[in-house]
Order: sequence, then structure tokens, then C-alpha cells
Amino acid sequence: MLGVLKKDPIKRLISALGKEKVNTSIVERKLYSYDATPIPIERAIPSAVIFPESREDVIKLVEVCYEENIPIFPRGAGSGLTGGAVPTRENGVVVSFERMTSFEVDVDNATAKVQPGVVTYDFQQHVEKLGLFYPPDPSSFKYSTIGGNIAENAGGPRCLKYGVTREYVLGIEAVIKEGKTIKTGNPILKDVAGYDITKLFVGSEGTLGLLTEATLKLIPKPQARATALALFKSLEDVGKAVTRIMTSGIFPSALEFMDRDAIKAVEDYKPVGLPKDAEALLLIEVDGSKTAVKEQIEEVKGLLAQLGVEVKVAQSEEEAQKLWTARKNLGPALGNLKTGKINEDIVFPRTYLAEALPKLRKIAKKYDLLMVIFGHIGDGNLHVNFLYDKTDKEEEERAERAVDEVFELALSYHGSITGEHGVGLTKKKFLRWQFGDTGYELLKGIKLLFDPKNLFNPGKVIEL
Amino acid sequence: MLGVLKKDPIKRLISALGKEKVNTSIVERKLYSYDATPIPIERAIPSAVIFPESREDVIKLVEVCYEENIPIFPRGAGSGLTGGAVPTRENGVVVSFERMTSFEVDVDNATAKVQPGVVTYDFQQHVEKLGLFYPPDPSSFKYSTIGGNIAENAGGPRCLKYGVTREYVLGIEAVIKEGKTIKTGNPILKDVAGYDITKLFVGSEGTLGLLTEATLKLIPKPQARATALALFKSLEDVGKAVTRIMTSGIFPSALEFMDRDAIKAVEDYKPVGLPKDAEALLLIEVDGSKTAVKEQIEEVKGLLAQLGVEVKVAQSEEEAQKLWTARKNLGPALGNLKTGKINEDIVFPRTYLAEALPKLRKIAKKYDLLMVIFGHIGDGNLHVNFLYDKTDKEEEERAERAVDEVFELALSYHGSITGEHGVGLTKKKFLRWQFGDTGYELLKGIKLLFDPKNLFNPGKVIEL
Repeated sequence: MLGVLKKDPIKRLISALGKEKVNTSIVERKLYSYDATPIPIERAIPSAVIFPESREDVIKLVEVCYEENIPIFPRGAGSGLTGGAVPTRENGVVVSFERMTSFEVDVDNATAKVQPGVVTYDFQQHVEKLGLFYPPDPSSFKYSTIGGNIAENAGGPRCLKYGVTREYVLGIEAVIKEGKTIKTGNPILKDVAGYDITKLFVGSEGTLGLLTEATLKLIPKPQARATALALFKSLEDVGKAVTRIMTSGIFPSALEFMDRDAIKAVEDYKPVGLPKDAEALLLIEVDGSKTAVKEQIEEVKGLLAQLGVEVKVAQSEEEAQKLWTARKNLGPALGNLKTGKINEDIVFPRTYLAEALPKLRKIAKKYDLLMVIFGHIGDGNLHVNFLYDKTDKEEEERAERAVDEVFELALSYHGSITGEHGVGLTKKKFLRWQFGDTGYELLKGIKLLFDPKNLFNPGKVIEL
Repeated sequence: MLGVLKKDPIKRLISALGKEKVNTSIVERKLYSYDATPIPIERAIPSAVIFPESREDVIKLVEVCYEENIPIFPRGAGSGLTGGAVPTRENGVVVSFERMTSFEVDVDNATAKVQPGVVTYDFQQHVEKLGLFYPPDPSSFKYSTIGGNIAENAGGPRCLKYGVTREYVLGIEAVIKEGKTIKTGNPILKDVAGYDITKLFVGSEGTLGLLTEATLKLIPKPQARATALALFKSLEDVGKAVTRIMTSGIFPSALEFMDRDAIKAVEDYKPVGLPKDAEALLLIEVDGSKTAVKEQIEEVKGLLAQLGVEVKVAQSEEEAQKLWTARKNLGPALGNLKTGKINEDIVFPRTYLAEALPKLRKIAKKYDLLMVIFGHIGDGNLHVNFLYDKTDKEEEERAERAVDEVFELALSYHGSITGEHGVGLTKKKFLRWQFGDTGYELLKGIKLLFDPKNLFNPGKVIEL
């Protein structure tokens, strides 16, 4: 054993896993040192990129890393926006799950066993053919993975009605300290035995261990959808409209918000005929039985008419698609305005929205920045985008300072610094504020129970 | 301080809280040493019953108890079935939250702040008047409390569609070791900052600390409901029927199962005209818009007709109520058959149901016991009831041995030992089996982070 220990740690990984699973080329190592985080962050070149193909591979690699004190940086599709997948230690390894892509659906039980590397969209397409539904829809869903979604507890527009990723994870199989495996939960909807380790693991951003399999809950696929567009002359009315809808017995499957600058950006990019003079708009989607959605979307129109809000109901699938395209074009549209973009996913209790939006605009004005706001208003999750010129370092710094004030504003309203993107590297400093000292100490204690050597995604989420 | 420490600990509690909040009468102490657990369990008479009226009271009492090493046994309505609220140490105190019953609903934000002593039914009635909905519906909901429901992560028939209590707890305020307070979550639906302490606390059965307030999520109240009764000649068809429904785009709000003995028991108790010759029946409920529920319940009828299953749709609210009354009468009906009843809420992946039911009957036969099975088939949560004569100790012991085999059977099918009732005292010995050694060690570690002196509900859930 001593002889083995003397060996170069990477050599040990290669002999444990086989060289086809351990890539040490500098090109690969540089490639896997990035994720989609838009702002400059600390980043190290890993000493290898590992591609496990089974749980056994994951156990072996964690055993070696734990003996050799090698930091482990797990990675899904690298589409995260807070640096969660970025290696931060020179001697670390990136573990990419792109080869663990098998899954198995149990239709009768409406559950599925899924490996972390499965692309969320592929999985959704498969289960929908079976009449089932896996709702979580982060905007990255076409390329991001189930493992990454679970690590970040990903959400999206549909989470207003259907809840975030956490609500669909019934159990996990993971490898923690020293290569030990834990199996939590079962392919059942109800299980109240013991503390909820499953939900603790969801959203832990790879800091507690490596996920090797998840048992997911599936629900019946809605039969139909209907979409409407509501145009607002004042921000106050937006909040009123949301309450009116949510207390009418109608449960929208999406309530998407765009402010005037977002509307303008989209129309300047690829016009779909949105009125540039509107103060804000809501995209409203309901789902359910064919008759119910027709009925309910008309009901929504009636409810908002009482508030003097104009509502256009999409009369065809094409019209609905056109509206959703406008929403989806926001990303590229903003990229079109400036070279740099910071997109922060803060959350406000939605009652404070009308009050908070002007304050957000004040922050933009203070730092003389172009700001665009859109997001999932039903759950108060706003995407605040500061746009800047990447070649202009001074403007970039202004944008970063502005973001800090945005976080402070969200917390001052009992909101959150992140509704979807996670903490990762970029939001670490705000976590203690959100949890308080006692709560923060508990987070640390939990981290050390799973990972006493702090080797799983070290430096992310919490400071030990 | 030393002088204070010399004082009788109960005197310290009285001087800290006032004597009107600390009851030491033997009558009261004996009264509060019971809960609804049907089988004999270890039970101690507490040295006092404490009635906090505010978070400040709770902090004070925990501070004293932590200094004086007084075990704390939190209590909601005492309707638990696994001994969770029963004091197990002579020198302990019971903490009853029956005086902390205020709550505040934020309609615009669709959330509520609730004290632990609020009765679930009262809260539900209130929010439904506002067009909102709090779904968790344990059968005790008319008297059990939000605090108790959160401690046990309570569920009921509606949880098939709406999820268990956990899904509705957005944040908690709790008092842990040394009287320290933690505040987690916010009145927002999305918050992915840090590890999910909120969900860890839900279902922890009072072993991590004392809940002082919960922030709950509310959803739109469904506009209408419809109920149907499906009669089965074979158990195999039950599973097939559930799959057929769940893959049809219809999401039932309840799928309740009764086996032949359950049907017979109800009909012998208060006849509602259920056919005693049926092998099993399903009560099917859908909710949503008025037209949708009519449409969907007929659709269900059509789907099951294809399987040769007879379905009777309730044509009026009265007819529907009659069917649900039959279901609700099961409890008393069973009480009518024998003096003693053990009701265990095991969970099977529902696919194994047809296979598992005969095995359950075999267990009943082996121990020569009268067994009745009903439950929430949609999520595989079965209530297995062994009936016995309380005066017949030998039969009672047979019943307890039979329960052990039932748990083993559930676990052998990757099920759970409890879907609703929790672990408490009665299911402790099975928890290590369900979690494995590594998982069990994590549970212990978590317990000690919140409660290093093991004073919060000691001896429940896990053995340290």
C-alpha cells in the first residue's frame, strides 16, 4: 500500500479506472475549467478530467481522491451561472458525468431511475411519449443534465405550478467521504422515515458527494395548454393581476414577466409585434384538459379586463409559439445589445414587486448601467440583467458593484439571492447573511459530516 | 449563577416563564404522557407540562432545559400513532403548543405565517374562504396541529396530486441547542441558497428542536371536485386501472383503496350499499374547473370500462359525500370489530401491490389474525390493520409479531416502513435497515449538530 501511495496520484487514478476514463491532455483540462458564469471568477486548471461510466468507477475515484487529498469538481453540462462546476484548486480533478447517461422508466409506478449525465430534455421527451411528465424546465434544459439540475435544484417557468427539481427527487444514490455510498428514498411518493437526506442532497451543488443515480417522480402529462398575453400600463397592476388570477381557482402553469426594456430588446432583435409602449407584460399559460384550458384562459381575460388590463389570447398553437419565442429570444436579444451581461436570479415575495422594481431601476441609474428585467413573476423570481461592454473594465466593475446592491435589496425584502442558479462561487459572501450565524454553523457541520476533508467541490457555497 | 443552578430545575422554569405556563399537577402530567399510539410503549410521567405562548417563552424554556439537562418532549394534539409525543424520561417536560395558535395569511403572496399550535382544519377553512388552498389532509386534520403535521411530515389522500406537508413548508423558525434560534427560508417559492435546512426539519419528529413558526405555501383552491367508485373482481386489475388513469393525462386528487374485508367492515358498521362480493374498490376523485371534472370523471369511467371494471360516478354532492363517508367510517368500523387495532402505514411501489397483498394476507393467516387493508393506492401507501382483543395479551403479541413481518415485506419491495405516521418509538428498529450504516451515521451526526445533549425528544427516531 505504501508503494501505491508513493505513486503519482493521477497515475493511481489511471490504474484504478483505466486511461480511457482519465484525460490529462492540457487542451481537455483547459476546456473543462470553464462553465457558463458570465463574470470573472477564480479558476484553476485541473490536473485531470475523469469520465466515470458506472457507480463502481465513481467509488474507485473517490477512494483514491480521499486517500490522496485530491479535490473533486463534479460537472454536468457546465451550463451553470455561478461557477459551481469550475475547478478552483490546481491539484484537483474535474469529474464529468457525460458517460453516465442511461435511465429506466417505470410507467406503472410513474417513477424513473436516472444516471446523472442524462440530458433533461432527452429524458422529458422520452417520458412524455409514455403519457408522463417531468416538469422542471430550467432555460438550459436542452443541454443541462439531471445531475446538474439536482445539484442546483433547478427550476423554470413551470415551477410556479409544478415545483422545482427537489419536488421530483424521491431518492438518491451517492458516493460520499472515503468512497462510501449512501442510498436514500425509494420509488415511492411517501416516505417519512428518518431525516430527509434526499432533499438535503438536492441543491447541495456537489459539495456533499457525487450523485450516481436519482429516483425521480413522474406525473401525468397535461392534455392541453393555452397561452395569453397581458399588457400593462403600470407596474402596480402587475401584482394586482397576479393575485386576481391566483385566487380565482385557476393555477397557471406559467406567469412570465417582461419589463419595458425587455420588450424593447426583443422587438429590436426579432420583432413579434409586442407594443414597445407597454410598461410591462405577462405571458400567461394554463394547462389541463382541452376544454378546461380554453375555459380558463378566457376566464383570465375576463378577470384582468376588470382591472382594465388588455389580454390577447393566442388563437392557435402558432400564435402561442410566437409569444414563447419572444420570451426565449430574450437571452440572445440582450447579447445583441452589449457584449457583457450579468444575469442574477433574485427572488422577491411577489407582493413587493411593484415597490422593488423602481428601486432596482434606481440602482441601474446610480451605476449608469443598462438594466433589463424579466422572470417568473408567479414565484417572484426575477432575472435582473446588467449589460455592459466586456472591453470596458471600468463598466464591468460598476456592473459587479450594482449586483451586490441588488442582492442586498432582495434580502431586505425577505427574498433570496438565488431562486434558480445556486450559490456556487459568486454568491458565497451573501449566504451567511441569509442564514445567520447559527444557521451557517449548521451548514458547515452538515458539509463536514459528508465530506470531512472538504474535497467535494471545495470553496463552493460555504467557507469552512 | 451557581445559586440559580442549585435551584430545583422546575422552579427555574417557573421563575423563567411564570407559573401559569408551567403545570406540575399530577393529573395534568399523567394526561400529557399519552398520545394515540395503539400499542403498549415505554412511557414516563413528565415532571411538568409547559405551555409556551411566544417564541420568547420557547427560547427561555430551552435555555433552562439545556443548562439543567432536562429532556424536552414537544407535543401538538397528541394524535400521533408512533409515540412521537410521548415522554420517555422521568425527569423530562412536555411542551404543548396549544397556546401558540395565531396565524397570518398573505393573500397577495399566497403564503402564511403560522404558529405550531394552529389546528390544520381551522387554518384550511380560513384560507379556502380567501380562494386559497392548503392541501395536506392527514385523517387527524380536524384536531391535529400544523406543528405536529410538520414534525411528522403528515400526508393524506390528496397528497397523491398535491404532495405531503413538506412541499408546503417554505421556511421555519425554530429553537435548537442552548436556546439558539434558526430562521430558514422565506415567503417565496424558490430559494436555492445553501443546504435545505427547512426540509431537514420537516419530518424530524421534534428531535432537532422546537418549531416556533412556519411559513407555508398556499395554492389556488380548485373550483370543483367529482367522485367515482370503481369495483374490482381481481386485485391485479387494481394496479392496471391505476396505471391506465395516471398515464391518461388525468391527475386524480385522490385514489383510495379498500380491500374486501374493509368493504365488509364498513357495510356491517353503517351500510352505504357497497357490494360485499367485490374483491376491492377504488374511490376516485378529480378536481379542477367545473367542466373539466365532469369531463375527466367520465373519461375515467371509459378508461376502466376498457378493463371490464365497473365504475359508478357520483351524480350529486350528496352521493359523493356518501362514498367518502364510507371511507371515513373505516376507522370506527374496525373499532367495532375488535377492541384492539394496530394500523401500520407501510408503502409499496404501487406496481408490487397485486403481488404484495396476497403475501400480507398470508402473514395474517400465519398469525391467525383478522386483517383489514385500505389506503392511498395512488402513492402505494397502504394502511394494514391487525385487529385483536385487547384483553387477550397472547393475541396482542401475535399482532405485534405480525407487524414486524409486514415491515420486512415492505422493505423487501423497496418500500417504506412509514408513509405518514413517522418513526417515533415504534418503528425505530427498522430505520437502520432502511438507511444502511453510512446513512444512519449521517442521521446521528445531523441530530447532534442541532442537539448535542440529546434533549429534544430523546429516544425517538434514532438511537445515539
